[in-house]
Amino acid sequence: MGKKQTIHIRKSDDFPFWYNEVIKVADIVDTRYPLKGCHVWKPYGYKALKLMMALMERELEENGHEEAYFPSLIPMSVFSKEADFLQGFGGESLRITHVGEKKLKEELILRPTSETVMYEMFSLWIKGKKDLPIRIYQTVNVFRYETKQTRPLLRVREIVKFKEAHTIHATYEEAEKQVEAAKQIYAKFFNMMLLPYKVLKTPSWDTFAGAEYNFDFITVLPDGKALELGSVINLGQKFAKAFNIQFMDEEGKMRHPYQTCYGISERSLGAVIAIHGDDKGIRFPSCIAPIQVVIVPIIRKGNDEPILMAKNLEKILKKILRVKIDDSDVSPGEKFYLWEAKGVPLRIEIGQREVEENNVVVVIRANSERKVLPLDEHLSGRLLALLKEHDGYLLREAQERFNKEIHRFTTLGEGKEYVLGLGARDERKQPGLVGFGWCGEQNCGRVIEKSLEMPALGYEKIKDNLTCAYCGKRAMHILYFGRTY
Amino acid sequence: MGKKQTIHIRKSDDFPFWYNEVIKVADIVDTRYPLKGCHVWKPYGYKALKLMMALMERELEENGHEEAYFPSLIPMSVFSKEADFLQGFGGESLRITHVGEKKLKEELILRPTSETVMYEMFSLWIKGKKDLPIRIYQTVNVFRYETKQTRPLLRVREIVKFKEAHTIHATYEEAEKQVEAAKQIYAKFFNMMLLPYKVLKTPSWDTFAGAEYNFDFITVLPDGKALELGSVINLGQKFAKAFNIQFMDEEGKMRHPYQTCYGISERSLGAVIAIHGDDKGIRFPSCIAPIQVVIVPIIRKGNDEPILMAKNLEKILKKILRVKIDDSDVSPGEKFYLWEAKGVPLRIEIGQREVEENNVVVVIRANSERKVLPLDEHLSGRLLALLKEHDGYLLREAQERFNKEIHRFTTLGEGKEYVLGLGARDERKQPGLVGFGWCGEQNCGRVIEKSLEMPALGYEKIKDNLTCAYCGKRAMHILYFGRTY
Repeated sequence: MGKKQTIHIRKSDDFPFWYNEVIKVADIVDTRYPLKGCHVWKPYGYKALKLMMALMERELEENGHEEAYFPSLIPMSVFSKEADFLQGFGGESLRITHVGEKKLKEELILRPTSETVMYEMFSLWIKGKKDLPIRIYQTVNVFRYETKQTRPLLRVREIVKFKEAHTIHATYEEAEKQVEAAKQIYAKFFNMMLLPYKVLKTPSWDTFAGAEYNFDFITVLPDGKALELGSVINLGQKFAKAFNIQFMDEEGKMRHPYQTCYGISERSLGAVIAIHGDDKGIRFPSCIAPIQVVIVPIIRKGNDEPILMAKNLEKILKKILRVKIDDSDVSPGEKFYLWEAKGVPLRIEIGQREVEENNVVVVIRANSERKVLPLDEHLSGRLLALLKEHDGYLLREAQERFNKEIHRFTTLGEGKEYVLGLGARDERKQPGLVGFGWCGEQNCGRVIEKSLEMPALGYEKIKDNLTCAYCGKRAMHILYFGRTY
Repeated sequence: MGKKQTIHIRKSDDFPFWYNEVIKVADIVDTRYPLKGCHVWKPYGYKALKLMMALMERELEENGHEEAYFPSLIPMSVFSKEADFLQGFGGESLRITHVGEKKLKEELILRPTSETVMYEMFSLWIKGKKDLPIRIYQTVNVFRYETKQTRPLLRVREIVKFKEAHTIHATYEEAEKQVEAAKQIYAKFFNMMLLPYKVLKTPSWDTFAGAEYNFDFITVLPDGKALELGSVINLGQKFAKAFNIQFMDEEGKMRHPYQTCYGISERSLGAVIAIHGDDKGIRFPSCIAPIQVVIVPIIRKGNDEPILMAKNLEKILKKILRVKIDDSDVSPGEKFYLWEAKGVPLRIEIGQREVEENNVVVVIRANSERKVLPLDEHLSGRLLALLKEHDGYLLREAQERFNKEIHRFTTLGEGKEYVLGLGARDERKQPGLVGFGWCGEQNCGRVIEKSLEMPALGYEKIKDNLTCAYCGKRAMHILYFGRTY
C-alpha cells in the first residue's frame, strides 16, 4: 500500500497533472474506484481531513453550535417544497426508485445538501421565541452528480465530511449578525490553514438556490483558476415559509423566523495541497499534518545507537507532537523523499555523528533549511518554534502568490486584452481574479461576463473613486471574474 | 427544543413503549422525520454516540487498525460480483436509477455494507506478501431497507456510524487469529459499556452472506428479546476469489489471501439505553455520558451564594469531568427529573445549607444514593470514585438480569413447555436465550427451530456431558434460540 513512487512533474509545468500525482504518491485518495468522482480516502489522507475537520468543529462548538445528524434520504415531497431550491439542485441529484426488485411508492433523493431535511424538522422543534436561536451543525457526505470534469477533493460526486451549519433567528438583524459571526469563524479557520482568500458577495443572478444573499470565500489555485472554499448564506424567510416554520412572538402573533447556513468540505484540504505544495509534494500546515515530525535514524555497519537514540527521542516528543520514527529497511534518501512528498513539516536525522555530539539535524519542509539542535530538555520547545517558522513561511509564500493573482482593470478593454493575452482556453494558465469597478447593475455585470467568457464570482465594497467598467457610472464595488473549479 | 416531558410508563409494564418514551424525553433521536426507520439525532444523543464510537476507535487504533473511507455508491457490476453476498443483501438494498431526469447507464447501489466496495480496491492494493496484513476500518452510514418493524437505534433503515473493520492475511491461521483478536476488542468494548453478552458462533445455515463462519455478540433486552450487538466474521477466500485479490508468495506463486471483517453500530447505544435504563429514564455508563456531573444550585429568596459556589465548582471539575451547571429558571424538582431522565451519573446539589457547611450533596443516578461530601481538594477524586461505584452498580444489575434470561433445557419438550407457557406471541414477554444440548447436525437444529418457532442464534462449546435435545446423540455444544430485534 505504501509503495514508493516518484513525482515526475514540476508544479509550475503542469499543475493539474502535478496535483493528481501528489494526491497519489502522498496516499491522500485513490482515484481508481470504478465510479467517476467517487474516491477512496487512504488512512494518511483521511487523518489530515479529520484533523482539519476537528479544528472547524472546535470553532463551531466554541461559538455556540451543537452537532446533530439528519437523515441522508429525502422523500421527494420534502425535497421539492422550496421551488428555487428544487430548480437549483434537482438536476444533479441522485434518485432512488427501487428497493431490491420493488418500486418505491415515493421516490427518495440522496441529499445534495440538507436544507430540506433539516427544515422539515425545525418546523416541529420551533414553537415559541424561547426555542430561538438554534445553531446546529452536522458532518455528512453529500452527493452531487457533477457533469463537469471531476478532480480529487476539489470537484467530486460524493463530497466527504461536508460540515454544514444551520441557524434560525427571531429577527432579520440577528440572522445578519450570525452571517457576520460565521464569516469570522471561517476567516479564522482559513487562516489556520494558511490559505489566502477574498470574501466576495455573490451577485444576485448567481445566489445560492433559495437564499437572500451569500458570501463566498474564494482563493486562487496555482493554475490561475478560482476556487470557492466555503459559503455563508443568508436564507431570509424563504425556507421558513416553504416549510411552515413559525414561532409565536411576545404579542402572541405567529411569525416566520430567519435562517442562515454555511458549509465547508474536503475541498479545503484540496486547496491546502494545491496551494502549499511544491515540486517535492505536499507541505502541510503543522496543525493538520498527520505526522508533524518524522525521525530518520541513519545507520551504518549495523551500529544501532542512532536507532536507540531515535526511539528515546520519539517517546519524549510524542507527548506534545504527532511523531513517527521511520526505521524501515530502505535508504535514508528514499525516506527523505517519501516524507517530503507526504508533507511532514519537520524531519529529524540522527546518525552516528549526532549520537556522538548529542545533537540532532532538523530539516524544515517549507524552506529546506537545516539546523543542528542540541538534544536537551529544550528540544521540544525548539521544534514547536520551528513548526511556527514552517507555517509562517508557507503563509507568506501563499499570500504573495495570491496577491499576484488579483488583476484589477479600469476598462473592460484592458481586462479583455489581459484575458485573451493568456490564451485563455489553455488549461495551463487561467487568469486568476479579474476585477472591475461595477455600478451594481445586473446588466453591466452580465455584459462583462459575456465579454470575458467567464462568470462573475462576487464583489466587494470599495472606497476608491472608480467608475463602472461597462456603463461608466460611479462604481461602489469591485466585481471579480474568473474561471472556476 | 429541550421541552420538559414526562415518562408515563414503568419499564417493566411495557418495555417497547417505555423505550420510545425515553428516547424522546432524553433527546436521543427524533422519530418524526417523515421516512420510516430514518431518525434525526439530537445533539445530546449524538454526543453519547460520538463518545461511544471514540472508545471503539481507540481500541481499533491501538490494535493496529487505520481509518480509511470508501465510497457510498456501488456500481451494480461491483455489487453483484460475489453471488452469496448479492443473494443476502440485494433484496433490501436501495437502487439509484436516475440523476435528475436522466437515467443512469449503470445502476448504483447505496451501500448496505462495504465488502464489495473495499475488496474491489484491495485487489489493486495487494501485490506481494509485504502488503499483508491490512487492517482497516471506517465509520459510515449503511442503508438497509428493513421490512420488519423499525425501532430507534435498534432496527433502522439508515444505520448511523456503522464502524466496520476489514482485514486481509496471507494465511488461514492468521485470519483465525485476527478473529480471536477482534473478539477480544469487542469484549473489552462491551465491558466498557457494562453490557452483558454471550459470544455465539452462528450455525452454518445462517452464516453471514459470503462468509466461512461468524461469531455474534448477543445480549437480551428487558422484554426477553435477543439483540445482536456485533459480528466478527471469517470470510475465508470467497471474496478474494470473487474480487481477484491475489498476492505473490515466497515461491513466486499467486495466491488468494484470507479475509475477516467485524462491525458494531448505533445499536450498541440502543442496548445501553434499553438495558441500563430504569423507570426514571436512561442510566449512562460514565464513559459515554455526555454530561457526567450536573450541578444544580438551589436558590431561595434571591440568595445567589449557591450559584456562585456552583460556578466555582464547575470551573474546577471541568478539568477532568464532563460537567454542566443547570441554573435555568425552573424548579429544582423539574431539573432533577430532567437530568435523571437523561442519564447523568452524578447530580450535585448546592443550597444555602451547603454553602454554610462548605459541602455538597451528591446523588448517584444508578442507585439513588445520597452522599454529603466536603467541598475540598479531594472532591474531584471522590467524584471519580463515585462514577466507578455508579458503573459497578449498573454492571452488576445488568449481569444478574442477563443470567436470569438464560434458560437451559435437557429436552425439547421442557423447552417448548417453557416457551409456550410465556404466551410466546405476546410482545410483552419474550423468552430470552433458550439453550439445548446439540450434536452439531443441521437437521437437529432446524427441527428445534421449527418446533419452537424461533431461530437458532448461535452455539457455544461445552464441557458438560449433554445429549442433543432432538436426536439424543452426544452433544458438543449448546445451541441457543430466541426471538430477535
